[in-house]
Amino acid sequence: MTSTPPSRSQEWLYGRNAVWEALHGRRRHRQLLVAQGTEHHGRVQAIMTAAMERGIRVHLVPRHQLEQYVGQVNHQGVLLETSAYPYVHLDVILAQSHRRPILVLDHLQDPQNVATLMRTADAVAVAGIIIPERRAAGITPAVVNASAGAVEHLLVAQVVNLSRALGELREAGYWLVALEPGPTAHNLFTADIPTPVGLLVGSEGKGLAPTLLRQADVQVALPMRGHVSSLNAAVAGSIALYELLRRESL
Amino acid sequence: MTSTPPSRSQEWLYGRNAVWEALHGRRRHRQLLVAQGTEHHGRVQAIMTAAMERGIRVHLVPRHQLEQYVGQVNHQGVLLETSAYPYVHLDVILAQSHRRPILVLDHLQDPQNVATLMRTADAVAVAGIIIPERRAAGITPAVVNASAGAVEHLLVAQVVNLSRALGELREAGYWLVALEPGPTAHNLFTADIPTPVGLLVGSEGKGLAPTLLRQADVQVALPMRGHVSSLNAAVAGSIALYELLRRESL
Repeated sequence: MTSTPPSRSQEWLYGRNAVWEALHGRRRHRQLLVAQGTEHHGRVQAIMTAAMERGIRVHLVPRHQLEQYVGQVNHQGVLLETSAYPYVHLDVILAQSHRRPILVLDHLQDPQNVATLMRTADAVAVAGIIIPERRAAGITPAVVNASAGAVEHLLVAQVVNLSRALGELREAGYWLVALEPGPTAHNLFTADIPTPVGLLVGSEGKGLAPTLLRQADVQVALPMRGHVSSLNAAVAGSIALYELLRRESL
Repeated sequence: MTSTPPSRSQEWLYGRNAVWEALHGRRRHRQLLVAQGTEHHGRVQAIMTAAMERGIRVHLVPRHQLEQYVGQVNHQGVLLETSAYPYVHLDVILAQSHRRPILVLDHLQDPQNVATLMRTADAVAVAGIIIPERRAAGITPAVVNASAGAVEHLLVAQVVNLSRALGELREAGYWLVALEPGPTAHNLFTADIPTPVGLLVGSEGKGLAPTLLRQADVQVALPMRGHVSSLNAAVAGSIALYELLRRESL
């Protein structure tokens, strides 16, 4: 049996966690390619079984064939051809939010940072994530891989206008909390943060756009006791997400 | 004036934050190379001034010359030739710890994760960091760069035997807290954590070595509410470091 050539709107996910989570997610899958020699590995066998249970064709192919599709990435012997990432409309997130936090990413450029933040967002069970359509890292196969597949379970809305999306959040009863250092920022851990929270995280270099910062109800920042004046954007955002989770259980 | 060829025990730091922090750190510097055309940039001018104030030779050179030394990295027009990273002895960390947390990294392999964690460690003002000499990412120029220079201000001890180092921590009155998921782990945010804390963080894939986990007084983990069962190691460690800082101010 030979593998089917990919069609245009499809993409190739790679890596065992990414493929496993995608198989348990919302995309439509076309075929699974497994590198010959890896098919006896327990995790790969579980992936093959999950694919077959879903009626997805599984092909054992020489390793170099995988690299024809995805190049020299750490594919771990598995490639899943699947439909494009299923972004949702913001309305969908709001309709089933259950007052869970919503994460808003302002033009994060680094796919690794986006992936890291989304993995944390899954871990704290956010209602969803809002990202801008332009000048920002979208959900590419590299992001899926770096997030260990977490993005496959998240509701992500790509919006044309972040400022308007913030307006919709507020109309839905959300408080807008900007994570952004500055003289008027409150300490994240002691600030009065009303819920539900729309958490705004800025880009790595420039931080949050002033127009978005002005829309925020509360500005918070992490206490900094060291020599270097900022944290990695994904780390700062992850700490804030977990602070929201910590407060829920008080 | 031409630049001096590098000697063997020297290394080249690159990137504006890394070079700036190194100039304010503990290494002995040999020369600063600045790419022609970047010398009017404010941040680069500040770096040149700081170098000259310290009696370090500054050379304006063609950009391609920088790349001869460090290759195709994001050097941002500045290279600092400097002595090897000044690791310290564990005794030095313990002697001036002031009961601040000490971070222990068990064989983290990914330089980006090490750098991210060290940047957070600086932000919460740990007393120091312990890493194993072998099979772990050390403080390379790439780590310095990725940490935004934070490692230049940290006390880092490379030890032959992590288990013995943990023994020394305990003798110095430190409690050993393992950040490691598992059925016996307590919720990080509600666990009883005595101070001062030696925080043990495991490697990305394997987690903490069983021999080290057995030495721990307390095992803690982050609550996980999502589909994916683990967080990025640097993110989890950063959240734990900030939880320790948060508790201090209660």
